[in-house]
Amino acid sequence: MPHLQRRELIQGSVAVAAIAALHTSRVYAFPARPGEKIVEWLDKLPPNPVPEVIKNQLVWERLDSWVTPNDKFFSIAHFNRPVIDESTWKLEIDGMVKKPMALTLADIKARPRQEVTFTIECSGNTGLPFFNGGIGNARWAGTPLAPILKEAGVLDSGIEVVFWGADEGEIKRADEVKFKQNFARSMSVAEAMDPKNILCYEMNGAPLPPDNGFPLRLVAPGWYGVANAKWLKRIDVRDQRFENRFMGRDYVTLREEDHKGETVWVETSVGRARLKSAPARVTQVGSNYRIVGAAWGAPVDRVEVKIDDGPWMPATIDHTEEAEFAWKMWSLDWPKPPAGEHTVTSRAIDTSGNIQPAMSDPWIAKKHTYWESNGQVTRRIQIG
Amino acid sequence: MPHLQRRELIQGSVAVAAIAALHTSRVYAFPARPGEKIVEWLDKLPPNPVPEVIKNQLVWERLDSWVTPNDKFFSIAHFNRPVIDESTWKLEIDGMVKKPMALTLADIKARPRQEVTFTIECSGNTGLPFFNGGIGNARWAGTPLAPILKEAGVLDSGIEVVFWGADEGEIKRADEVKFKQNFARSMSVAEAMDPKNILCYEMNGAPLPPDNGFPLRLVAPGWYGVANAKWLKRIDVRDQRFENRFMGRDYVTLREEDHKGETVWVETSVGRARLKSAPARVTQVGSNYRIVGAAWGAPVDRVEVKIDDGPWMPATIDHTEEAEFAWKMWSLDWPKPPAGEHTVTSRAIDTSGNIQPAMSDPWIAKKHTYWESNGQVTRRIQIG
Repeated sequence: MPHLQRRELIQGSVAVAAIAALHTSRVYAFPARPGEKIVEWLDKLPPNPVPEVIKNQLVWERLDSWVTPNDKFFSIAHFNRPVIDESTWKLEIDGMVKKPMALTLADIKARPRQEVTFTIECSGNTGLPFFNGGIGNARWAGTPLAPILKEAGVLDSGIEVVFWGADEGEIKRADEVKFKQNFARSMSVAEAMDPKNILCYEMNGAPLPPDNGFPLRLVAPGWYGVANAKWLKRIDVRDQRFENRFMGRDYVTLREEDHKGETVWVETSVGRARLKSAPARVTQVGSNYRIVGAAWGAPVDRVEVKIDDGPWMPATIDHTEEAEFAWKMWSLDWPKPPAGEHTVTSRAIDTSGNIQPAMSDPWIAKKHTYWESNGQVTRRIQIG
Repeated sequence: MPHLQRRELIQGSVAVAAIAALHTSRVYAFPARPGEKIVEWLDKLPPNPVPEVIKNQLVWERLDSWVTPNDKFFSIAHFNRPVIDESTWKLEIDGMVKKPMALTLADIKARPRQEVTFTIECSGNTGLPFFNGGIGNARWAGTPLAPILKEAGVLDSGIEVVFWGADEGEIKRADEVKFKQNFARSMSVAEAMDPKNILCYEMNGAPLPPDNGFPLRLVAPGWYGVANAKWLKRIDVRDQRFENRFMGRDYVTLREEDHKGETVWVETSVGRARLKSAPARVTQVGSNYRIVGAAWGAPVDRVEVKIDDGPWMPATIDHTEEAEFAWKMWSLDWPKPPAGEHTVTSRAIDTSGNIQPAMSDPWIAKKHTYWESNGQVTRRIQIG
């Protein structure tokens, strides 16, 4: 495995230990008990009406690993799903830069390697009835973006960095103008320069799968999925604020905010992820049940679980595997639940004391778009 | 005049000299000749179909002063034109700040005074057949914005500053959601912190007229008109990118850009002004004609004028009155032009050597929206 050899060469025994942990995580890292069986949720998703857009949703009942395997990882494509020939592909860096660049995949792989374990959630996840599996956690590897931007030399007039994908479709604006456009998202120069951002070519130790952006995607830890542009072809520094479908019209949250008793309707672009948790599955060993779930989107301090209309009960966070931008697994034992139908709800609390909002919280209830639906998730289950 | 006394108190004799210059500018600062008469342009604007939106366009033939008098200054209102009671009005500063503030007009006037002479152009000006007078130059006075933001204490999570006006209307989005919203525009925190930005309460020595934002507007030198929000009521620091009608859907320029032979359709938000010039009027003394015009939007180095399909001829910049963000007046003598119909075109060249584009330049010709129409302006005239 030349890839492993290369990693050993670069990172030595720490990398080997990390790889070992990765390959064993499916066995040891999940709050599981011998002989347990899964109790399926009663609530099932209606059929996905847009299978070409949303592929391979996470099946929460099957969640049994901290890292989501590549073949179980969700994928979103707004236009086509380009199949890119690595031998002719190049990444261009241009626009308001002193020294435009064009990098091959070999050029990018020859640069310093950086890994991050990051749970990516689609900002539409749980905002639509057929969509609750737009989330997954992977170990992403690539090279940091900032040194490349510094090498290209962003001009003082450059205020934004636009990430262009190879995926392309027809755009029709409200003014009826139609044109073809590649997927693109922008960030401010300061946001793009975040040392955590990587130009990612590897997902869980394998080349980036075609559905997840082969040969290269942006991985921007802490941002919703849409910002992590796939199938990158060009990084374009601009002197004006970029406003395409995915910045100014789509992926725009509309919310009623209360301002001293007055309602203010506010529209904002989907950006950094929000605090969230969800029950994943319930398992049973005899009459002893266990609720397992995940929490993510902000530095999670603790998770609480509510059964039916009962009190909030503290869940136990599993510390076997953790990373700054990865979801945390939690569990709550539920001994001898009464037979019948029950609801299970979770809420995460971050390290600043912010609580994941209830669905009835104005923050969620007065949101008029499905984006950023970080309200508490309630699942239904039949016992006995 | 208590106002003058106050200025003298604060700024001393420099201010007095400036005021003196202001009050005499209409007489001395314009490239005029004794006994001249105005030759009207043949091309006249069709009737303004939106008189409630666009009021009081500049009549170029009547332009005879460097500073545009308040009663001749254009005004744009996207919604209503609010009439605000100064005695109850307050400016709120809140959102992602340590110390929210509410300032009365007296509070604002008691803060350090700053003036700027700035030519504001509507970014739609000359982009629509009925609209070529959305421009004017005024001496704006107010207090710098940055120290107020510093006093309020922008939190690290704050990335944008939203300027909310008191003007309000119904918004209907492409997704058919309808709601009421006040006019608002946003800037990045860094852009808002520009020491040149002022919270402006005075226009050419008088209180801000109701149509130009009484009691307070933002004056952001170097930005197109839309950024200079009028009738300010609230300054709201946010942790997400703001995307309302005026940021993400309207005032968005759509342009075909050539990228190595491939056409890339790019949408950007109207922001900083662009290099531009226009012929203002032609005057006649006997058989000696003179073309007078203005140039603005970037640091202007020189202006050239073309008559019919002739060569570009250097115009003379009038240095009587100049300021960094104000238009420059220029003139070109045109002795004994042949009788008949002629065209007059001007182009400005900035200090970096950029030339105001021709209407046939791809920069303009491949622009599909009327915003940022900084192409060369051609006027038609009949001699003899």
